[in-house]
Amino acid sequence: MTKKEIEQLLTAVRSGALEVGDALEQIQEMPYKDLEYAKVDYHRELRNGFPEVIYSPGKSLEQIQGIVADMLKRTKGNILASRADEQVYAAIRELTGDAVYYKDARSVVVKRQEYPVSEDYIAVVTAGTSDIPVAEEAAVTAMVMGNAVRRLYDVGVAGIHRLLDNVEVINRARVIIVVAGMEGALASVVGGLTDKPVIAVPTSIGYGANFGGISALLGMLTSCASGIGVVNIDNGFGAACMASKINQL
Amino acid sequence: MTKKEIEQLLTAVRSGALEVGDALEQIQEMPYKDLEYAKVDYHRELRNGFPEVIYSPGKSLEQIQGIVADMLKRTKGNILASRADEQVYAAIRELTGDAVYYKDARSVVVKRQEYPVSEDYIAVVTAGTSDIPVAEEAAVTAMVMGNAVRRLYDVGVAGIHRLLDNVEVINRARVIIVVAGMEGALASVVGGLTDKPVIAVPTSIGYGANFGGISALLGMLTSCASGIGVVNIDNGFGAACMASKINQL
Amino acid sequence: MTKKEIEQLLTAVRSGALEVGDALEQIQEMPYKDLEYAKVDYHRELRNGFPEVIYSPGKSLEQIQGIVADMLKRTKGNILASRADEQVYAAIRELTGDAVYYKDARSVVVKRQEYPVSEDYIAVVTAGTSDIPVAEEAAVTAMVMGNAVRRLYDVGVAGIHRLLDNVEVINRARVIIVVAGMEGALASVVGGLTDKPVIAVPTSIGYGANFGGISALLGMLTSCASGIGVVNIDNGFGAACMASKINQL
Amino acid sequence: MTKKEIEQLLTAVRSGALEVGDALEQIQEMPYKDLEYAKVDYHRELRNGFPEVIYSPGKSLEQIQGIVADMLKRTKGNILASRADEQVYAAIRELTGDAVYYKDARSVVVKRQEYPVSEDYIAVVTAGTSDIPVAEEAAVTAMVMGNAVRRLYDVGVAGIHRLLDNVEVINRARVIIVVAGMEGALASVVGGLTDKPVIAVPTSIGYGANFGGISALLGMLTSCASGIGVVNIDNGFGAACMASKINQL
Amino acid sequence: MTKKEIEQLLTAVRSGALEVGDALEQIQEMPYKDLEYAKVDYHRELRNGFPEVIYSPGKSLEQIQGIVADMLKRTKGNILASRADEQVYAAIRELTGDAVYYKDARSVVVKRQEYPVSEDYIAVVTAGTSDIPVAEEAAVTAMVMGNAVRRLYDVGVAGIHRLLDNVEVINRARVIIVVAGMEGALASVVGGLTDKPVIAVPTSIGYGANFGGISALLGMLTSCASGIGVVNIDNGFGAACMASKINQL
Amino acid sequence: MTKKEIEQLLTAVRSGALEVGDALEQIQEMPYKDLEYAKVDYHRELRNGFPEVIYSPGKSLEQIQGIVADMLKRTKGNILASRADEQVYAAIRELTGDAVYYKDARSVVVKRQEYPVSEDYIAVVTAGTSDIPVAEEAAVTAMVMGNAVRRLYDVGVAGIHRLLDNVEVINRARVIIVVAGMEGALASVVGGLTDKPVIAVPTSIGYGANFGGISALLGMLTSCASGIGVVNIDNGFGAACMASKINQL
Amino acid sequence: MTKKEIEQLLTAVRSGALEVGDALEQIQEMPYKDLEYAKVDYHRELRNGFPEVIYSPGKSLEQIQGIVADMLKRTKGNILASRADEQVYAAIRELTGDAVYYKDARSVVVKRQEYPVSEDYIAVVTAGTSDIPVAEEAAVTAMVMGNAVRRLYDVGVAGIHRLLDNVEVINRARVIIVVAGMEGALASVVGGLTDKPVIAVPTSIGYGANFGGISALLGMLTSCASGIGVVNIDNGFGAACMASKINQL
Amino acid sequence: MTKKEIEQLLTAVRSGALEVGDALEQIQEMPYKDLEYAKVDYHRELRNGFPEVIYSPGKSLEQIQGIVADMLKRTKGNILASRADEQVYAAIRELTGDAVYYKDARSVVVKRQEYPVSEDYIAVVTAGTSDIPVAEEAAVTAMVMGNAVRRLYDVGVAGIHRLLDNVEVINRARVIIVVAGMEGALASVVGGLTDKPVIAVPTSIGYGANFGGISALLGMLTSCASGIGVVNIDNGFGAACMASKINQL
Repeated sequence: MTKKEIEQLLTAVRSGALEVGDALEQIQEMPYKDLEYAKVDYHRELRNGFPEVIYSPGKSLEQIQGIVADMLKRTKGNILASRADEQVYAAIRELTGDAVYYKDARSVVVKRQEYPVSEDYIAVVTAGTSDIPVAEEAAVTAMVMGNAVRRLYDVGVAGIHRLLDNVEVINRARVIIVVAGMEGALASVVGGLTDKPVIAVPTSIGYGANFGGISALLGMLTSCASGIGVVNIDNGFGAACMASKINQL
Repeated sequence: MTKKEIEQLLTAVRSGALEVGDALEQIQEMPYKDLEYAKVDYHRELRNGFPEVIYSPGKSLEQIQGIVADMLKRTKGNILASRADEQVYAAIRELTGDAVYYKDARSVVVKRQEYPVSEDYIAVVTAGTSDIPVAEEAAVTAMVMGNAVRRLYDVGVAGIHRLLDNVEVINRARVIIVVAGMEGALASVVGGLTDKPVIAVPTSIGYGANFGGISALLGMLTSCASGIGVVNIDNGFGAACMASKINQL
Repeated sequence: MTKKEIEQLLTAVRSGALEVGDALEQIQEMPYKDLEYAKVDYHRELRNGFPEVIYSPGKSLEQIQGIVADMLKRTKGNILASRADEQVYAAIRELTGDAVYYKDARSVVVKRQEYPVSEDYIAVVTAGTSDIPVAEEAAVTAMVMGNAVRRLYDVGVAGIHRLLDNVEVINRARVIIVVAGMEGALASVVGGLTDKPVIAVPTSIGYGANFGGISALLGMLTSCASGIGVVNIDNGFGAACMASKINQL
Repeated sequence: MTKKEIEQLLTAVRSGALEVGDALEQIQEMPYKDLEYAKVDYHRELRNGFPEVIYSPGKSLEQIQGIVADMLKRTKGNILASRADEQVYAAIRELTGDAVYYKDARSVVVKRQEYPVSEDYIAVVTAGTSDIPVAEEAAVTAMVMGNAVRRLYDVGVAGIHRLLDNVEVINRARVIIVVAGMEGALASVVGGLTDKPVIAVPTSIGYGANFGGISALLGMLTSCASGIGVVNIDNGFGAACMASKINQL
Repeated sequence: MTKKEIEQLLTAVRSGALEVGDALEQIQEMPYKDLEYAKVDYHRELRNGFPEVIYSPGKSLEQIQGIVADMLKRTKGNILASRADEQVYAAIRELTGDAVYYKDARSVVVKRQEYPVSEDYIAVVTAGTSDIPVAEEAAVTAMVMGNAVRRLYDVGVAGIHRLLDNVEVINRARVIIVVAGMEGALASVVGGLTDKPVIAVPTSIGYGANFGGISALLGMLTSCASGIGVVNIDNGFGAACMASKINQL
Repeated sequence: MTKKEIEQLLTAVRSGALEVGDALEQIQEMPYKDLEYAKVDYHRELRNGFPEVIYSPGKSLEQIQGIVADMLKRTKGNILASRADEQVYAAIRELTGDAVYYKDARSVVVKRQEYPVSEDYIAVVTAGTSDIPVAEEAAVTAMVMGNAVRRLYDVGVAGIHRLLDNVEVINRARVIIVVAGMEGALASVVGGLTDKPVIAVPTSIGYGANFGGISALLGMLTSCASGIGVVNIDNGFGAACMASKINQL
Repeated sequence: MTKKEIEQLLTAVRSGALEVGDALEQIQEMPYKDLEYAKVDYHRELRNGFPEVIYSPGKSLEQIQGIVADMLKRTKGNILASRADEQVYAAIRELTGDAVYYKDARSVVVKRQEYPVSEDYIAVVTAGTSDIPVAEEAAVTAMVMGNAVRRLYDVGVAGIHRLLDNVEVINRARVIIVVAGMEGALASVVGGLTDKPVIAVPTSIGYGANFGGISALLGMLTSCASGIGVVNIDNGFGAACMASKINQL
Repeated sequence: MTKKEIEQLLTAVRSGALEVGDALEQIQEMPYKDLEYAKVDYHRELRNGFPEVIYSPGKSLEQIQGIVADMLKRTKGNILASRADEQVYAAIRELTGDAVYYKDARSVVVKRQEYPVSEDYIAVVTAGTSDIPVAEEAAVTAMVMGNAVRRLYDVGVAGIHRLLDNVEVINRARVIIVVAGMEGALASVVGGLTDKPVIAVPTSIGYGANFGGISALLGMLTSCASGIGVVNIDNGFGAACMASKINQL
């Protein structure tokens, strides 16, 4: 509510055009106007097919069903339940036949709108096959959020010709998500090959001095290639959120 | 070189339109064609005013002068020497009167083109006044790379009204760089207020359990707000690189 | 025993009013008088309804039953068994029908006195729903120790309007316990909004760079808001102890 | 501004008792009303002699003089500059003869009000003599914030009789700040002797496996005594802030 | 493809001896010529009996069977599946009776060629009996890669005469792999006794301050004996790869 | 073999009193004479009732039975199997009725000699009841190695009068083993009360910032009391070994 | 004061043989009788030539002179100032010509009694020459505390024959202090060669993965040799304290 | 001394051909025969031009001069003083005009034999220019130890074409030393391109999450390329030792 809007409201109260009670109601909600703006923005996202996301761990099947049932009524976009197992899928399946289970991605999508096909795609790249679950979480999340996605898997730097043979997938993307465990070197090599923003996801793939993903995390943070943003270990979801924000600018 | 271009070249050789020696020269450079593409892209950047960047530490003043002198001849864009002290400034000043020293940012710019003014700006936000040097490195780098920048400093979460009073600066930006030391909580709060990509820069500001920036780094990586990309501790330059890549999509 | 009391005792021995054997007994216990004071204080607490607390892990059901049975005879206040599972509850239930099981709080209370209702309450605030078990341990402990408690859950900084909408719960409390995992930023924001003492409990909620609660722990220790005391990771019990000591000043 | 106050304001506008312009001004400041409340509280503190605190590192002498000069005009309470060296003292001394330098505490106080004398004191206790600077920072800060303070220094657990001989200083305090380096065991022993809230300050005193205060920090966080709140390493100021909040409940 | 080979190709195209289409095909594969070289090298290795290695974890039994079936057709050398359990063995056994299971080494070998017997052997040495599984992984890998191996187990430094009694096994080797957990001191002692390259494998054997192999890892990296190369914790396979490369120089 | 003994041997060879073959045999074993001395010492220990110790983890029941059977034949002293579960006990029980299982200590002893009773005892002290298993491992090991032991359990510093009431147990010991988890402060307090050597055993008892025993380990290493030797986390066996070596000087 | 002594005192009061005032004085000091015992023990040490130790860092030269002057009057034994530089030496030298400066050991001794010569010596052993300062601190401290000392320096395991050639120095000692940096392997080898108690001192000698002594510290804590007690990094003084307590049993 | 040699010696004693005294002397040195073998090997190295190496830090200029003077007399090969500054150079220069100072390598060589030229070279490769000092330490050490060396500097993966353009230098080497800071990804890429042994040297080049070389160290230890041996951070000397041992097999 701008200064001018408040002035108009007060003038309306004085003139009797607006009841004190109605004005009270409007002003009462004003304190967090800038924050309410975030809610407005959220509404916009719902209208645009950008769904609420349900993080499954720590929620009961009943809670998940409750949230999904409510969303089925209130929204028209795709619905995503992340880090979901087969039981979550079964629970959602009871509510709607539109539920699809992406096993690798550990994600359930209630698919009510087609995923977009576009040349403005997000590339999701992995170093090894073990990194694919995290990459799929990113890919499915990005698609559900309304982005085209191209996958390029198992192109780690130990056999760098695999990457170079497919460098066009990287160069034609608008944003690139690099998913890698162990030493995470793929992020540096990709970062050096492209002028597009790179989001790096360290994975906990590895053992010993990998320390649950620390080696990849530190490697990506200290990359010799500039302009790489890093998210938490195994956080495919977060990488897709950032990639989607960038792709939809 | 596409498949078609090679075919044309070979056909020209067969027809005698192209000498074997000339064809040899062209093909000889082809092996790293995809990598050469990165060089081509680099040329494009130079044409677009995107300068080479000189990382000053570990380079002698003579080396820096040599590089700058060469760039003055070869390029027309702004030139940036980062992490530069007064001596580096003096050395570059000897070569050109266009050199400007941004003390807070520890950056020397040979300013041969005006910084852009645009509504499509990068917001650079800090938690405290001690974070300003890192933020200025980001801001100056972003400007030199051809981006409009708006600063919003000292809006840390311990007095959150300072941030909320200025939330429009954040909401109207295309990309937001959040620079914060100590616990780095500002990144989470900003990330929750906006749907634009946020790049978080942990700083080494703090003492004790800050451990040279680790507390802010871990806080940003595990932020409860989604879609935040993190760069290395105190790496204002890297944040600006990524922000610029995003802003120029 | 003060200097004067000893003098009187000795005078009584000399005069024959006190037998040597009786004086011996009194003096024999004197050495740890200042420490005995702690015991006296403990007695006072029992009278005031402040119960012994049984930390369940590592104790057999028989041991727990033994302790509870003894307390049922010796005391009149509420009895708390913390970190208790269903089996502990069943074992205590065999002894008394007053046993109540707080599942979220993993706590069994033998409720023999009503919890207090008062305007001088301890606020227990969480960032997310996953932090609730730790918060409930704090809340139940605080109540059993004789404090009024108000809960404010799921008001993390990624949606800061949820916190600001409820800021009165915080401002009217005498002490605030903030329970947060991930980056723990809620402690800083609450600390900046209030002039009451804040006790921060980092939780192990999170993954990857959370490192079992380290990110929240370091974030709370290096908070940009002053006057925050931090307890161990997931230590809702300890936070309640300190809050109770403060609230009962 | 409560709901009722807004209603009265609007009624006054309608009745013409309040001009639209005046009402506008009042409402305009309302958006951050709950945050403004923090400002109001801050005003109250100034009235109560609770001073602004100037954290000296990273500020120029001119900046410090500017802030102090402004405070001398605007406030009547004591003024504190923390982590201040002799130069900061000299700079403030130029402005006012009331400046006092507490060398051990690295603190400058512009003393315009006497420190309180009261039985409701904060006890500041150290393990060794090397912990005294951190303890003095806490003691001076607490006094400037309007609290009575009693010191008990060099009573570490390696000679536990020194502590036990002085246990009354601890038992009669309302809050106890324990400052200890090395293994920080003093916090546990004091915590076991008292039913008052204990704030533990780990110091960086030690070498080798002390790791700059980590051994004391971890020791205090995992103390076997309940109800201890821990602040950052060497953070005497933060401990005093929390102790003052508690003491002034 | 050397410069000269390209020249000959182009000359053949001009003369009509080579069709444009055929030349196109050859040149098309040239870009990664240096990388193709790695593939050629791989072919050479297959001819020399150096097998593909299948890292079993994260692969389904079907996938493993698919890979082995393909290799049985395409190659003649030994085939190794590492980190394999009994189920992997059974799956491969279905395909060929040549499969052998080395339980300690957690390795399945399809043995189609005899292991070499030679005086140019790799010595595999362990500190304790618990280190044997890692050592066996190294030994079996080395044999499958075509190296003679001699084992020297349980010669840790707490009973150094066991090592000295067998020093000839070490001195006559071409390369020595030292496998040790706990403090890993055996690497230093062996390194001081020999002028042959030593590859040190820290194991996760130990508890407490071993921290999953960190104590041995750091000990080996900071060894007072020069010329020791360290691989990841428990990485017997990697040690054998390096030893084999050295032994086959 | 001393210089003089060699001289006598050579003289005997020259004189014909000793055959070349016999002399050869003696000299052949001489190289590790100093190490053989360790073996001799081992024999002495066996005679003195100091048994071989079998570390059970990682050994099959058959292997354990084999070792015990051999020791039953070859030695007359007590036999200790440490870190042993019920199954190990049953396996040894099959061989001899003298087997005793100390469940808390996770130790099986084949008791063929009475434990010593002496005023020269080793005191084993714990902070809490959860530390008792580690303490019992130390106590049983010490007894089996021929030392008198006195236990003093659950005397942690949070209730320091429990320790002070029993200070004589500590002061009359020859060596003191202090077993403590959490912050490990008991080692410092005991170290300050006695002039006898103190061996500190950090335990992994605790959670959160205990980090599996690190808080106690660092606390004990940086103790403000001098003359404390620390062993690995949970290493009751090692503490007993050192205490026994000291007690038997 | 034993129970019997108190009884006698009380009887004397009753009989009039002791005045109430005199009895009062005696009893008044009793509360910390067990702690007073520590003081008595301290007196005994002074009588036995065991000096007070002055830890120099953090003390002014005036403070050190004050302490030494007082000790010169009150005691007859040797006086030790540890971690002392040339200036401390000069300051003490002003007070007495008996002051000796051990530069390597960074120790000043006021030598008023000869160091003991005895077959019951403490062996101080180092891995390298860089470890000598820490070893000398141990050696001088041990001598000043009344122990005979034998040094064995630069016998690290990279050239193990140097150690084996001198194994008698180790075997004839009553206690062995092993001082080693880098990987600290010498402690394990010595521990395996002797049945005497070994005190291991990790030093901060090394770089990189030594991490200021952590590699040696962890190596010594996880040693494969049993019965090794570890002190803090670089803590030669603490090792000597423990060795002296053991040697004087 | 082999069994046969001892037999001959004893036979000579019996026959009187050898005096008892002379035999005694020979046998007396035998105990560490296997270790003496290492000394013999050391002699061989001296003959082959492999010099003693003087690690300069912690040695006085006089000590260094003493060692060099002795070596000038006793040996004929090149002499190396590592980690040497200008002062060390000047001190050695006083003794001999053959001293050469390699400033980048921080190494002084007394060059009395030419460095070898050979096709069997060690390749020393760096990621950046800042890694050159560590690389030069490796290169100079390797040359002094008698190996041919080829350098390939500044070919980090952020511009991977620089590496690929020079892949022949890597493929034709017998051993490759990869020196890299930051994330150390170069080791993985080189390891994937070659079948020769790779020795990886992490450097402390970087800041923030580099943590003094930890990011590169962990990255190299967890490399996705097999057969890489890692040495300590910044340890160019150690890498050259291992490379030399391999190259001289």
